[in-house]
Amino acid sequence: MTTMNRRIVLASRPSGAASESNFRLESVPIPVPGPGQVLVRHHYLSLDPYMRGRMNDAKSYAEPQPLDEVMVGGTVGEVLASNAPTLAVGDKVVGMGGWQEYSIASADGPSRVAKVDASRIPLSAYLGVVGMPGVTGWYGLNAICEPKAGETVVVSAASGAVGSVVGQLAKAKGCRVVGIAGGREKCDYVVAELGFDACVDYKAAGDPKALRALLRAAAPKGIDCNFENVGGTVLDAVLAQMNAFGRIAVCGMISRYDGAALPLAEPALILTARLKVQGFIVSEHPAVWPKALAELAAGVIGGTIKYRESVAQGLERAPEAFLGLLTGRNFGKQVVRLV
Amino acid sequence: MTTMNRRIVLASRPSGAASESNFRLESVPIPVPGPGQVLVRHHYLSLDPYMRGRMNDAKSYAEPQPLDEVMVGGTVGEVLASNAPTLAVGDKVVGMGGWQEYSIASADGPSRVAKVDASRIPLSAYLGVVGMPGVTGWYGLNAICEPKAGETVVVSAASGAVGSVVGQLAKAKGCRVVGIAGGREKCDYVVAELGFDACVDYKAAGDPKALRALLRAAAPKGIDCNFENVGGTVLDAVLAQMNAFGRIAVCGMISRYDGAALPLAEPALILTARLKVQGFIVSEHPAVWPKALAELAAGVIGGTIKYRESVAQGLERAPEAFLGLLTGRNFGKQVVRLV
Repeated sequence: MTTMNRRIVLASRPSGAASESNFRLESVPIPVPGPGQVLVRHHYLSLDPYMRGRMNDAKSYAEPQPLDEVMVGGTVGEVLASNAPTLAVGDKVVGMGGWQEYSIASADGPSRVAKVDASRIPLSAYLGVVGMPGVTGWYGLNAICEPKAGETVVVSAASGAVGSVVGQLAKAKGCRVVGIAGGREKCDYVVAELGFDACVDYKAAGDPKALRALLRAAAPKGIDCNFENVGGTVLDAVLAQMNAFGRIAVCGMISRYDGAALPLAEPALILTARLKVQGFIVSEHPAVWPKALAELAAGVIGGTIKYRESVAQGLERAPEAFLGLLTGRNFGKQVVRLV
Repeated sequence: MTTMNRRIVLASRPSGAASESNFRLESVPIPVPGPGQVLVRHHYLSLDPYMRGRMNDAKSYAEPQPLDEVMVGGTVGEVLASNAPTLAVGDKVVGMGGWQEYSIASADGPSRVAKVDASRIPLSAYLGVVGMPGVTGWYGLNAICEPKAGETVVVSAASGAVGSVVGQLAKAKGCRVVGIAGGREKCDYVVAELGFDACVDYKAAGDPKALRALLRAAAPKGIDCNFENVGGTVLDAVLAQMNAFGRIAVCGMISRYDGAALPLAEPALILTARLKVQGFIVSEHPAVWPKALAELAAGVIGGTIKYRESVAQGLERAPEAFLGLLTGRNFGKQVVRLV
């Protein structure tokens, strides 16, 4: 076993689009756990769109990622050494270990990890469908959208870690589910594999008007609920077709993370259609996590909730994989395999 | 008594800004009430921003105002002749009689009028503070904003029929209340007469940046609740200063009624501040009206809720007064006195 821990730190803040030069790979000694602590070897690192926001030095819901410190991120791994009574060597754990191969953690507090059962669910899924992205989909759909059977639910970034959960949960509620995704392959997947009723390929729409026409054909009765992962012209198209008393859960504005703010073309539609538009951050709603995770785990084990992963191999590939995620090159949940 | 009823119909739909040429004054015979009906002589006609939206032939929350028919509008008046067992000659009633001097009404159904007590509250107030505008303020504040004591509430069009109610109700809940209004006189009024803590004169701000600075000075702890009557750059300024978990009740987008849609500059703030932005139309929430009206009437009688009216004299002045309302020339609730 090596005695060195490789890690990726934020070297500089992006001006405009992020690039690989914003990251720096370092080697440091593997840390030693103190009293009550454990040493975790990470098997998978999670890459998520929220990380792009943290790279800026701007007011947001979270503190900016400090320069020269390990990039924040969810991890799953195995306990290699333990001074914590409730965590044993060999336990599989999920936590926020960051973009590195090893981390020090404990059973509670800010560096806490939680034991997971890797016997029936693959370890990497705890970073996706039965992790933060899955609960994000569950919360936005159930706590904000609250769709009823027969209503039409639209979800953008439909093949992604969050969108795929939203659509499958909405289908189980008896909704008509329309995905929006980039490219024929992703659209085919959400319809054929995930069971969505329809999917709009926004890349096939040459302009906003064409996008609206495709969406109208896919959602002929209008849209009652929207789970928004994207923003920009996709949100404009959805907003224009919302039914009265529609609900929009705002989970992501990925098309705004780089460069200038994207305006919303017709905010008056919020009034004329009497919409509720609500932003949320799933980490601020810890009370729902146990219920959501139990439901998601049961769905994965039972085969009613499917998911897909893009796996990059090796920590050094994390920046490239992350930049690909921001431009939609991933297909499903993006993780980095570290073992 | 004359036998003719003067009325104003929609002569044409505006392209761009509305003008007096969109209206036509007509004289027709006073109608005769049928079985179960009453004849009402209108004392006051209400002018409200929503009427501008009805003049367009566009999808909105309400059907367009038909051409060549009497303009829709709230009215208060007196029963002149009655074939309805529950309405007597001399009763004062409020209803939707439209832009005319007389109307046929009944005790229920689409042309219904409701008896009001004009002994302790002036008749015209049933079109404003103890009418639709007052309930609008009550609903948006209590059902959507739900402010807590100590929170900061901002209301645009603060000296108007709706905004003045919002601010006074919020003050009674122990909030810091900041108005936004056009001109020193209106701002002085909402602070000195209505008891707001501060007021931002948006006309005194030369540009959006100056508007934001004025707002920041008036709401130094940020904004928890916004009752939005205006939209456009005013909403952009408010949105940029909303605190986490803030609530925005969208009641009006008056600056969008004429011409092209005004975009919202930074919709991503809905996510980063985890806001709830909700549009509403008060007529769709009939269950709250009795409670709201009772509270508003008690406030007016007790002197804790003050209001102001702009009164135009004579039906023929209604178009001019209405156009003035759309550009903020009114001060307080705009009515037309018809007797």
